[in-house]
Amino acid sequence: MAQTTNGSMKGAFLLKPETIAIRELPRPRPGAGEVLIRVRAVGICGSDMHLYDTGRIGSVVLESPHIPGHEMSGEIAALGAGVTSLAVGQRVVVEPGIACGHCHMCRSGRYNLCGAVRFLGIPPHHGFLTEYVVAPAQWVYPLPEALSFVAGAAIEPLAVGLQAVAQGGVGPESRVAIFGAGMIGLVALEAALARGAEQIWVVDVVEQRLGLAKELGATVVNSRQEDAVQELRRQTGGGPDVVIEASGAPAAITTAFKSAAKGATFVAVGLPEAPTVALDYTAIVRSGIRIEAVFRYANQFPLALDVAVRRRERLAKLVTDCLPFAHTAEAFAVAHARREGTIKVVVEFP
Amino acid sequence: MAQTTNGSMKGAFLLKPETIAIRELPRPRPGAGEVLIRVRAVGICGSDMHLYDTGRIGSVVLESPHIPGHEMSGEIAALGAGVTSLAVGQRVVVEPGIACGHCHMCRSGRYNLCGAVRFLGIPPHHGFLTEYVVAPAQWVYPLPEALSFVAGAAIEPLAVGLQAVAQGGVGPESRVAIFGAGMIGLVALEAALARGAEQIWVVDVVEQRLGLAKELGATVVNSRQEDAVQELRRQTGGGPDVVIEASGAPAAITTAFKSAAKGATFVAVGLPEAPTVALDYTAIVRSGIRIEAVFRYANQFPLALDVAVRRRERLAKLVTDCLPFAHTAEAFAVAHARREGTIKVVVEFP
Amino acid sequence: MAQTTNGSMKGAFLLKPETIAIRELPRPRPGAGEVLIRVRAVGICGSDMHLYDTGRIGSVVLESPHIPGHEMSGEIAALGAGVTSLAVGQRVVVEPGIACGHCHMCRSGRYNLCGAVRFLGIPPHHGFLTEYVVAPAQWVYPLPEALSFVAGAAIEPLAVGLQAVAQGGVGPESRVAIFGAGMIGLVALEAALARGAEQIWVVDVVEQRLGLAKELGATVVNSRQEDAVQELRRQTGGGPDVVIEASGAPAAITTAFKSAAKGATFVAVGLPEAPTVALDYTAIVRSGIRIEAVFRYANQFPLALDVAVRRRERLAKLVTDCLPFAHTAEAFAVAHARREGTIKVVVEFP
Amino acid sequence: MAQTTNGSMKGAFLLKPETIAIRELPRPRPGAGEVLIRVRAVGICGSDMHLYDTGRIGSVVLESPHIPGHEMSGEIAALGAGVTSLAVGQRVVVEPGIACGHCHMCRSGRYNLCGAVRFLGIPPHHGFLTEYVVAPAQWVYPLPEALSFVAGAAIEPLAVGLQAVAQGGVGPESRVAIFGAGMIGLVALEAALARGAEQIWVVDVVEQRLGLAKELGATVVNSRQEDAVQELRRQTGGGPDVVIEASGAPAAITTAFKSAAKGATFVAVGLPEAPTVALDYTAIVRSGIRIEAVFRYANQFPLALDVAVRRRERLAKLVTDCLPFAHTAEAFAVAHARREGTIKVVVEFP
Repeated sequence: MAQTTNGSMKGAFLLKPETIAIRELPRPRPGAGEVLIRVRAVGICGSDMHLYDTGRIGSVVLESPHIPGHEMSGEIAALGAGVTSLAVGQRVVVEPGIACGHCHMCRSGRYNLCGAVRFLGIPPHHGFLTEYVVAPAQWVYPLPEALSFVAGAAIEPLAVGLQAVAQGGVGPESRVAIFGAGMIGLVALEAALARGAEQIWVVDVVEQRLGLAKELGATVVNSRQEDAVQELRRQTGGGPDVVIEASGAPAAITTAFKSAAKGATFVAVGLPEAPTVALDYTAIVRSGIRIEAVFRYANQFPLALDVAVRRRERLAKLVTDCLPFAHTAEAFAVAHARREGTIKVVVEFP
Repeated sequence: MAQTTNGSMKGAFLLKPETIAIRELPRPRPGAGEVLIRVRAVGICGSDMHLYDTGRIGSVVLESPHIPGHEMSGEIAALGAGVTSLAVGQRVVVEPGIACGHCHMCRSGRYNLCGAVRFLGIPPHHGFLTEYVVAPAQWVYPLPEALSFVAGAAIEPLAVGLQAVAQGGVGPESRVAIFGAGMIGLVALEAALARGAEQIWVVDVVEQRLGLAKELGATVVNSRQEDAVQELRRQTGGGPDVVIEASGAPAAITTAFKSAAKGATFVAVGLPEAPTVALDYTAIVRSGIRIEAVFRYANQFPLALDVAVRRRERLAKLVTDCLPFAHTAEAFAVAHARREGTIKVVVEFP
Repeated sequence: MAQTTNGSMKGAFLLKPETIAIRELPRPRPGAGEVLIRVRAVGICGSDMHLYDTGRIGSVVLESPHIPGHEMSGEIAALGAGVTSLAVGQRVVVEPGIACGHCHMCRSGRYNLCGAVRFLGIPPHHGFLTEYVVAPAQWVYPLPEALSFVAGAAIEPLAVGLQAVAQGGVGPESRVAIFGAGMIGLVALEAALARGAEQIWVVDVVEQRLGLAKELGATVVNSRQEDAVQELRRQTGGGPDVVIEASGAPAAITTAFKSAAKGATFVAVGLPEAPTVALDYTAIVRSGIRIEAVFRYANQFPLALDVAVRRRERLAKLVTDCLPFAHTAEAFAVAHARREGTIKVVVEFP
Repeated sequence: MAQTTNGSMKGAFLLKPETIAIRELPRPRPGAGEVLIRVRAVGICGSDMHLYDTGRIGSVVLESPHIPGHEMSGEIAALGAGVTSLAVGQRVVVEPGIACGHCHMCRSGRYNLCGAVRFLGIPPHHGFLTEYVVAPAQWVYPLPEALSFVAGAAIEPLAVGLQAVAQGGVGPESRVAIFGAGMIGLVALEAALARGAEQIWVVDVVEQRLGLAKELGATVVNSRQEDAVQELRRQTGGGPDVVIEASGAPAAITTAFKSAAKGATFVAVGLPEAPTVALDYTAIVRSGIRIEAVFRYANQFPLALDVAVRRRERLAKLVTDCLPFAHTAEAFAVAHARREGTIKVVVEFP
C-alpha cells in the first residue's frame, strides 16, 4: 500500500488497552490498482473490543499504536493508476481481508483461510478508524443508494452471518437455533431468514436482546429462566438440525451441543474468552454431529450488500449507538460497557 | 424377529462385567423376509469390550445376560417366507444395524443415525456370538469366495474405516494423519489407500502397532518419542488436511487438533473413556476446521466387501488372534489384556 | 396392498386415449401397515395428460382400464394392522412413489430413482381418482389444518418444484431463470422464493401465465415478443446462474441453455413431447454448465407441507379449475384444452 | 507481460491452417512477478489440432501468425523483479490459464471459468512452441526430479483427466466407463485409478488404443464389434454410475448416455467437430442423470505432478511420438494423421 504522504489526516489509535487517542498521521496515496477512500462510518466489532480490553487477539499482540476498525463505508477520494472500475465520489465498502489470491486456499475458494492475508484492522495492519484509507480496488464494492453509510458499516458483520448460515446449510427445511443475541447472532438470524428458514430459535440470557430477536421473528428462549435444552428439544421436535453458536460463552456452547438433533450441523462462530472449552466429545461422535468453524467469510460481500438492501429496515435496528469520530474513545467505552441495549456501536465521520 | 424355537443352540452370554459364559438357548426360526444363519466367525470390537469391561456403553446398561458381537460371517441355514435373493448354504455377512427404513434419516441416506435402529449386539438386542442368528435378508450380503469367514468378520470394522475416509473427503491429493494404530486406525489406513491417498501418517505410542502401520505403507510417528505436532507439520508442510482420530485418547485428540492444517477436516471416530474432553475451541474456530463425527456407517458394506477382496492379504494381518467359540471367554480375556501385538480378536465356530 | 373387498366404490378409469369413464370397483381393505383413505381432491398432472392424450408415458403403455391421478388429499377411513401413527378421520396427503426402501438408491437418499418403486397412478398401479385408496402408512402425511383439501392436492407438484430448486442449489445469491409458467414453473418460482431467491425471471409465450408469474413476484420475459437470451443476459448481468427448464418445449430448452451464465446449473424438469432434442453440446462443455435432471423428488413432502402453509394464499392462485368427481371426464377435457388461463385442474370429491 | 527484447529466439508459428513455420522473434524479458523459461518440451493437444486443421477453435479465429502449444516443461532462465519462490536453472511446468484472480469465479475456486483468463496458446495469446516464454511465477510449478521434460509436457492433459474424475465424483465404489481411448480418455483412466476406482471400462473403435487401455488395467469394449450399451449394462450390472465422454464423437456421446445407470454422473469432456448433438433429453431427465461439463481444470496441477510421479512408467506409454523443435511442422503432420498408434505427440527442444 502506498505510503507517500499527501498532507495529513486524523486517525484513532489504540495506544494500550482501554486507551484510544486521536492523532495526526500522513494521508496515504493510492498505488497502482488501489483507491483512496474517505471514511464515512466504522463499526466497532467484538474483535476490536478484544484488542481494546486485553491488548491481544488470538496470537496477535498490540505492540505499537494501532488503528482499529474493519467494518466500514466511505467515498472514493482518489484512484490509483489503472483503476477503471470505480469513480471518485462513489459510495463504497471495503472487504477488509486482503487475501493473496494465489495460495491453495485462495485458488480453491476459501480465501478466508489464506495464510498470507492482510486483514486491515488487525495488527500489524491498520484499520479504518481514520479519515482516509487506501485499499485495493478489487476488494472495494459499490454501496447501493438504498443504504446509508451507517448501514454500509454493518455489511462486514452481515457477511459473517451469511457465511455462518452457508456453512450450516440453512434452508427452508431447517430448524435453526442461534445462541447469542448480540450482533453476530442477530445478523445470523437475518441471514437464516434470507435463506428461507422460518423456524428459528434464539437463545440468550438478556431479555432486551431477546426482545429484539423476537421482534425480528425468532422464537426466543431465555436460558436463565428456562431449561434451553429441554425447551429446544420439545419445541423443535427432537432438537434443531442447525445450531449456530454466536455467543462464545462456554455455558452456551455446552447447551448448544446438548440441544442439537442427531446428525445436526453445529456452526461455531463465537470465540470464548479463554480458549479451552470442555466438550462432551463422546456425545458429539455418537450423535453424528458435524461442526463447521466459521473464520471470517469468503464471497459473501456481494450477497451481503443485496441482503442489506432487502432487509434494511430490520438491520437498521441492530445499530444501537452512533457517535462522531471525535468521540471514538467514548464509542469504545460504550461498547466496552456491554449494556443490555447495546448491539452495534458505529463511529460516524462528519 | 421370529423366536419360535427349532431345537436349541449355544450362545456366549456376557453375564456381568468380565464374565462370559456359554449357555443353551432356543434356536430361532426366520420370519417372513428373514434368514437363519449359521455363524462361522465373530470379531470382538472395542464397543464389545466397553460393555465387557464396564457393563455400560454410552447410555446403555447391561441389565440381563447379553450375547455380544456385531462383526460376523456365516452361512445361510434356512430361508424365511418370501426370501428369494439368498440361498441355503450361501456364505454371507450381516450388517448389524437394522435401520427402520422410513424415518427422515433413513430416507435421506444417513441410516446410521436412524433413531429406531435395532443394532444387533448392543443391549437389548442380542449379537452374533451364538451358533445361529436370524437377520432380515435385506441386511445380508454374499461373502465373496476370495474371502475366508475370518476375513468376513472384519468387514464391519472396515466399513467404519471407509465411512471415516468418506466423511473426511480423502482423495489422492490428501495429506492424511491417522491417530491410533489399533483396528479402526488401521482399517482407516487401508480405506484411505483405497481412495487413492498415498501421503498417510499414522501416530501411536506403541512400536509394534506402528511397525504394522509402516508395513502397510504409512509414515509413522511415535508420539511418545517425537513431538507429533511438530513432526506432522514439518513432514506434511503445514499440517495434514485430513485428520482421522481413531484412538479416543484425550492426549491424542489434543495432538490431532493441534497438528491439523488450516481448513482441515477432523474426523472423530474413537471414543474416549470419559466423555468430556477439553478442546482448544478458539484454535478450532480460527483455523476453520470442519469436524465430522463418524457414528457407524451407511452404504459401506458393498464397498467394504470389494475392498476386502482387493486388499485381502493386507487386511489378514489385522486379525492377530483367533480362538474357537468354546473359548469365547478366553477371547475376551485376550482382547481385555490389550497386548501390544493384539489388533483384532476373532472367535471361530467349528 | 390388500385387495379384499369391503363393498364397492366408484373410480374414474382411463379406458383408452381421451376416454374417461366412471365405474364401480371393489373397495380395498388396508393390509398390515396400510391405511384406507377416503379421497377428497385429486390434481390432474401433465403426466396424466400424456397418458390421456397418447395412451403412453415414457415406456409405459396403457393396456387396460387405468385409474389415473397421483396428486391427492383425503381423510383416513380405516387403519390396517399395526398402524399407530395415524387416526381415523385425520386429514392427509399421500406421497405416491412407494419406494422399496432397501436398494442402493433408497438407502443413499435418492429414493426417487428406486428401480422397484410402485408409483401410484402410473400403469400398472392405479392412482387416486377413486373414492377410496389404500396406501402404506409410511408414505402418508398429515395435512395441516391451514390447508384445504384442494390445497393438499397441490402438495405433490410443489414437491417437484422444491426438488428442482434443491438440485439447482438455489439460494438468496442466485439469479434464477425459469422457463415455462405452467404449474411446474410456477411451483418452482414459489420454491425458489422459499429458498430466499429474490432475483427470479420467468420466461413463457403466454401473456396470461406471465401475468400470474409477475403477480407472484417474478420479472417476466415473453420470448415471443423479446429476444429472451439477450434480455436475460442483459438484465442478469451475464446470464442466470440457475436455469430451471419447466416447459419441455424444445425451443425453450435451446433458449434456456443459451441464456445460462458460465458455470451455471441447468435444471431439467420439463419433458418434451418427442424425446430427442438437438443441443449445442460444445457450448455446454465450454461454458462449464452442470445439468441436473429432476425425476420426481425425494424427502420433499414434509417441506412441501410447510411451504404450502406459509404460502397458501399464493399457491391457491395456481388451482384455476375445480370440478366434482362425477365430472372427471370434463376435468380431463379442460386440462386437455390447455387454455391460457388454466394452470391446475383439481377434481373434488363430495 | 514484458515484451522488451533481449536478443532473439525461434518460435513455431501457425501461419494458416496446416501451415507451420519456424521464425525468429524477440526474446521476451520477465516483468515483475514473472519468470523467463527456456522451453524444453511441448505437447500437441487436440485444441492445437483444431486450430491447425480449421483455423478456428470455438469462437476464436486464427487471424495472424500464432504460436500454439499450452502443454510444456522447461527451465527457469531468468527471474523478474520480486520473484523469490523459484530459482534460475529450476525445472518447471507452467499452468497455461492465467486467471484474473479477482472475479467471482476465481474467488469461488472455479478459476477455469474466469471470464478474463489469458490462456497461453489460444489466440490472441501465444503459446509455448518457442525457445523462451515468460509466465507469472504464481502459475509456475517445480517439476519433480523423477519426471523427464517430456513427462512434464504431459502434466497439463493429466490435469484435465483429474478434473474430469473429480467432477465425476469417482471413488473406489464407482463403476466408471470412459468413452474414447485417446490422450484424454487414457489420462482419465489413470486419474480414475488414482482415485481408487478399480472397475473401469474403456470404449473405443480402434483396437490399438483399446490394447493400451487394457494394458493400463481397463476392461475394454470395441463399440464397432460389440453392442457397447448392452455390454456395459451387463458387465456393470445396470450401467456405469460415472460415464466420462472423452471422444467428442456424436455416436459415442449417444452410446455413452444410453449406457449410463439411473442416477449416474455423465462427465462431458470431448468436444464434437460440429457443435450440435441430438440427445435423448427425455431419457436423461427420467434417468436422473447429472451432467458435468469439464472445461479445463482448477487446482489440479499440484496433484497432477504428484500423480505423474507415482504413475510415471504408465504415463510414459502415452507419449507415442517425440520430434525435435526444428521438425515442429512434421510433429503437427504426425498429429494430423491421427494414426492408430499415435496418442500424444511431443516436441522436444535441444
